[in-house]
Order: sequence, then C-alpha cells, then structure tokens
Amino acid sequence: MPDTEPTPDERYRRGLAQLEKMGGGSVTAMLGKKQEISPDLADITVEFPYGDILSRPGLDLRSRQIATVAALIALGTAPVQLRAHIDMALGVGCTEEEIKEVIIQMAVYAGFPAALNGMAAAQEVFSAREKEGV
Amino acid sequence: MPDTEPTPDERYRRGLAQLEKMGGGSVTAMLGKKQEISPDLADITVEFPYGDILSRPGLDLRSRQIATVAALIALGTAPVQLRAHIDMALGVGCTEEEIKEVIIQMAVYAGFPAALNGMAAAQEVFSAREKEGV
Amino acid sequence: MPDTEPTPDERYRRGLAQLEKMGGGSVTAMLGKKQEISPDLADITVEFPYGDILSRPGLDLRSRQIATVAALIALGTAPVQLRAHIDMALGVGCTEEEIKEVIIQMAVYAGFPAALNGMAAAQEVFSAREKEGV
Amino acid sequence: MPDTEPTPDERYRRGLAQLEKMGGGSVTAMLGKKQEISPDLADITVEFPYGDILSRPGLDLRSRQIATVAALIALGTAPVQLRAHIDMALGVGCTEEEIKEVIIQMAVYAGFPAALNGMAAAQEVFSAREKEGV
Amino acid sequence: MPDTEPTPDERYRRGLAQLEKMGGGSVTAMLGKKQEISPDLADITVEFPYGDILSRPGLDLRSRQIATVAALIALGTAPVQLRAHIDMALGVGCTEEEIKEVIIQMAVYAGFPAALNGMAAAQEVFSAREKEGV
Amino acid sequence: MPDTEPTPDERYRRGLAQLEKMGGGSVTAMLGKKQEISPDLADITVEFPYGDILSRPGLDLRSRQIATVAALIALGTAPVQLRAHIDMALGVGCTEEEIKEVIIQMAVYAGFPAALNGMAAAQEVFSAREKEGV
Repeated sequence: MPDTEPTPDERYRRGLAQLEKMGGGSVTAMLGKKQEISPDLADITVEFPYGDILSRPGLDLRSRQIATVAALIALGTAPVQLRAHIDMALGVGCTEEEIKEVIIQMAVYAGFPAALNGMAAAQEVFSAREKEGV
Repeated sequence: MPDTEPTPDERYRRGLAQLEKMGGGSVTAMLGKKQEISPDLADITVEFPYGDILSRPGLDLRSRQIATVAALIALGTAPVQLRAHIDMALGVGCTEEEIKEVIIQMAVYAGFPAALNGMAAAQEVFSAREKEGV
Repeated sequence: MPDTEPTPDERYRRGLAQLEKMGGGSVTAMLGKKQEISPDLADITVEFPYGDILSRPGLDLRSRQIATVAALIALGTAPVQLRAHIDMALGVGCTEEEIKEVIIQMAVYAGFPAALNGMAAAQEVFSAREKEGV
Repeated sequence: MPDTEPTPDERYRRGLAQLEKMGGGSVTAMLGKKQEISPDLADITVEFPYGDILSRPGLDLRSRQIATVAALIALGTAPVQLRAHIDMALGVGCTEEEIKEVIIQMAVYAGFPAALNGMAAAQEVFSAREKEGV
Repeated sequence: MPDTEPTPDERYRRGLAQLEKMGGGSVTAMLGKKQEISPDLADITVEFPYGDILSRPGLDLRSRQIATVAALIALGTAPVQLRAHIDMALGVGCTEEEIKEVIIQMAVYAGFPAALNGMAAAQEVFSAREKEGV
Repeated sequence: MPDTEPTPDERYRRGLAQLEKMGGGSVTAMLGKKQEISPDLADITVEFPYGDILSRPGLDLRSRQIATVAALIALGTAPVQLRAHIDMALGVGCTEEEIKEVIIQMAVYAGFPAALNGMAAAQEVFSAREKEGV
C-alpha cells in the first residue's frame, strides 16, 4: 500500500504546475470548455494524467512527449489532443525535426495514412506557432 | 525528386546493419521464419523499416524505440513485435525503469488494459534477459 | 435452425418501430441521406441493427444504449453515430449524469483522449436538445 | 421499404448454402461451438453475414474475400477469423500468391506489425491445407 | 479546484473495497502478479480505476460493468481484462442472458468477429464459474 | 538478399508512374502539400507504397484497391485517404456498385458505423466525379 503520496489538493496543484511546466496552454483551454459540462472530468484530467503520471520521475519530459505523440498518431482517433501534444513536445525541448522523424517512423508501425495525418497535424501546429511568434 | 539515396543493395545491407546495431536478434529470428513463406516480406522488412527509416538521422535510437514501444502498446495488436521492441529499447540504452514509465503513461492515452498488457510484455522480456544473463 | 422469426417485411417494420421507440430521429435523418446513394444499406440498417438486434428481449433499452455509447467512445471512429446514440440514450431513460459517468469511465478503459472527445460529443447533444426544448 | 426479400428460413438456408459454397468449414466448426453458449449468435452469423450480405450479387466472391482478409489484417484483433477467411479466400479462387500480396500491401495501410502477423496467419493456413492435402 | 476528495490512503483503501464489492478476484490476482514488476502500476490501478472512478456515485455498478464489457469487446485488444469484467458483471447483478445480449449487440457496432470473440470469452467465464460452483 | 531491385531513382520514377497509372490525382495533390513541411515523407510515400508495393506483380490493381478501400473503412481513421482510394478504385476499373458492396460488407467485419461512414465517403467521391464529368 502506497503511503507517501500527495493529498488530493496536492494532486490538483501538482497537475496544474505540470501543465504549465509543459506549456500545456492548449490543454488548459480545452479543459476550460470541459469545465462547463463536466467539471469532474476537467479536474480528473488535471489530477491523474498531469498530477499523478506525467509528473512522475523516471522519464524525462521530452521522452514522455515523444511517447504520447507516437501513441496518438498510431491510434489516429484524437486529432485535437495530437496537436496539443505536438505543441507541448516542442515546449519541452523536442525540435520540429525530431517530431517529423517520430511521425515518419509511424508509417512503419501504424501505416502511411497514420503518418500522413500526423504530418498534417504537425503542419498546423508549426504554422500556428510561427504566426504567434513562438 | 530524391537523388542521393542508396542503391537497393545498400538499403538491404544498411537495414541488416541497423538491425544488428539495435540488437534486433528477435526481429532477425522472426524474419527468418517469414523467409520461408514470404522472402519478399522478409526482405522488405529489412529494407524499409530498418534500411530506410530507423537508420535516418534526426532522432536518436533511444527516442525511436520509446516511440515504437508507445505506439505498439497503444495499438495493442502486436504482442510479438512489442516484446521485440522492448528488448531493442533496452539494447539501445533505455533502462527498465524508463520503459516501465512509458508503459504506465500509456494508461493515460490508451487506457489501463493497454498499460497492463504492456507491463506483462515487459515482464516477459525482462525475465528472458535475466535468464540469458544480458 | 431458427423457425419462429419474422418475415423480412416484419423485420423492416419492426426496425422502424424500434427506431421510433428509441427516439432515433437523428438516425432516421442520416438513413434518409444514405437512401439516395445506397437504399440497400439504409434498408439493412433498419432491418438488422434495429429490427433484429436492438428489439431483442433480454436486455433493457437503457442498458443497450449504455453499451453502445461506451463502445462508440472506445472505438473513437464514429462521432456522428456517437452523438446519435447519446441522444437516443437520453430518449430511453438515461440521465445526462449517467451518460457523463459512462464517458468518464471510458478514460479508464480507452484513455483520456477518448473520454474527452466523448464529453465534447455529449456537450453538443445536450446543447442541441436544450435549444430544441427537449 | 424492401419487399422482395427471402423469408427468415430462406435467410438461414441461404446462409448455410453460401458458407458451403465458400468452403467455410472452419466457420461452420466455430459456429458449432458457439451453438452451445449462444444458439442465437450462431444462427445470426449464418443469416446476416452469409445469408444476407456475402450472398449478394454485385461483387464476385474472390473480391469479397480479398476485402475481408484485408480488413481483418488491418484490424488485427481477430486472428481466428483471419485464418478462416484466408482459407475461404483460397476456396473461392484466390491463389496463395495473391493472398500474400494483399498481406504485404497491408504494411502500407496498417503498418508492418499488421502485415507480419497476417503473414504468420497465412503460413498456418497454407501449412494446414498442405497437410490435409487440399 | 476540488477540495472534498479523499486522501491518497483513502483512495487506495477505497479502491480495494470497491474491487472486493465488485467481486474483482481475478483483477486482484492479476494485480498481484503486476506487483512484482511494477508495484506502482498495481497501486495506480487500485487507486484510479477502482478508487476514483468505479466508486463514483451517479451510475449503478451493473450499468458500469455493461459499459466496460461493451467497450472491451469493441476494442478487441484486452481478452484477459474482458474475461475479468464479464466475471465482475455477473458479480454485480448482470445475468448471463444480459451479457450475451451485450455481446450480440456488439456485432452491430464493432463487427461480427468482435462479437464472436466476445462470446468465446463469455463461454470461458461461464464455464469457470460453473466449475467453481459460483 | 535481394539483388534485382531498381535503384532509388527508379523507385521514385516507378512510384510516380504507378500513381499516374492508378489515377492518383488526389494523392499527388495531397503529397504536394506535404512537400512543404516534409519533402522526405512525400518522397517516401511515392517510393514505398507506389514504387515498391502497389507496382508489384502478383495481384491486379482492381483487387489491390478493393483491399485498400476495405482496410481503410475497417480502420476508420483515414477519411481523406479513403476518399482518395475510392476514387482510385474507380480509376482502375471498379464500378460504383462494386465499391458499395465492399462498403456494405464492412458492416459485417467492422460494424455498421464503419460501413455508414464509408458510404458517406463514397457519396462524396461519386458526387465530385459527377460534377467533374469523370
């Protein structure tokens, strides 16, 4: 039985801090909208993925974002989240070049349509950041 | 139009070299069996994934294996390949700890059954390596 | 060999009746459009899912819609159908609260992106119903 | 509203005839086992896929089996059914060569693990048929 | 920001209590094995799915298990978990008949192979329970 | 080791020729856009799927397109590519009737939502071709 974990308030605070650290502005915006229909899911999304998991030691954030981007391209069912996580991958130190390599590699494991759709998502994110001068 | 790519023989040789570099013994063994029924697919698997893609510069091999392991856990349909790529991830410098973190993270993006099945695959690979004294 | 099933005309009629009973207005509208390109698929969709399966005894309609909503969120590839079935779930007695619980639960089994996309679908349906004064 | 369809008994009989025509011995065997736990699902599987759909005119059986084999390889979640349909594809006139081409092609659309697992399934079917002297 | 949630110890205790309440003996057994390779994932699986989500009010446990069984059949990638959740569905009040209806219904939304594999899983669970005299 | 394959330039040229032969105007247009963000992925998509795989002997182009259309409907994650491949299927000799049969058949193997979404894609392609007077 675990006994050194944070209290729930700590989980939420740590989740928000983690989101900020990862440049998760687009996630925060999306959760703001969810807040209206389901404050519970919005809270849980801060607490569990960000507060409990992504803030764990043992794997650097750059590797974590590579894993998430790869998984979302392979699944192919979450374009909004894919764009958010490509954006966050750039925020934690991945280069555009590296993200493109992850995408191209997914042609091998999930097929060309997955990779081509992933590249289209990256293009949107890269363009948006250029416009915003990030 | 690309004009500086290797000739096909180079692609195959480069694929084999890449496989060896990545400690892909289990892949080579699997391809040996495929050789019988479809030498073409066996050759193509050396040439394209390993000769063309995984040998590209622009992303380190450790990150490449993290991406592949994450994608295969998310897909959940390729247990043999997942075990092979967990093994290769260890071969190119990932620690067991890091692989476990990738797997736990997949609970967030692909659900707990995906993560639990991924962890079972990791357990098999880690045990096999321990027995073999790797 | 089954011997007490309805004749085909009965299957189609029973399918239409089932659709009406389940408040499947959005499905009927969608099938109207399919009617043009493929009257066969439109007919089959009335006959098999509604005439043969959803009208079976042995499971209440509220449970049937919970099963369908959960499955469509997990698959993540049928947003139009997901919205239609959330609407029908409300039509056969599920509360908005219950549907939100099904969606949140899918974060566990299919991952957070699936749940967040499911909640966005629910939000559209709930809003549309509110506007229409349902 | 359709009005020239067969009666249910005709659907079941037509399904059985279609299965026999397509050499679906492995499907019949599998359905025999399902008969015990769910005679309804066993009956429905004869009636709808075989009685209603695969017996439709408008597409030759060889093309139908190519479509099914491709889809099952892409999905990657139905190894038993994939083997049955590879067997049936051979039964309706596909050559082993053609099936291998479909499988290799799936590397493009669903990724290499899907293709490699598909080829392993084909190998089992081809070997079993050779032993049985088909 | 949520402020009335349980402390982590409560989450874990509540998760275990929830598992017991749902008759999750097979899950507990599986987690026991995971305990060895990843105590963290084993703990998290008690805390989040069971402690945080399945113990939420707002949806009865019978409906929750119907949702999970439907989702796992649709995904088709988690046979071990599917069997565990069919077992738990029976434990919280679903009848075998109802579970078979959920499975048959999945033929509509996820295809016949998904339903047939789901029925095979149910058959294993029903037989095991019969042997154990449950 | 393969020794009679074309040089890379031949692969690219053969890919382009294959695309033209298959009436892949929509693919070429899409690759034109990818060219900007990732010339490498655009080149690889010409070389591998078209230059290496779809140009292989052993399976006629009509069967190849039936396989691809079936797989993309089953996956349900690549609507842009599905429309392009339905268009190409018509270009290599499939009739609209045959494509509709493939789509209806997918209701059996991947579920009704997959088939209904596939039919919507076909409707868009058929309409666009009618407008363009193809």
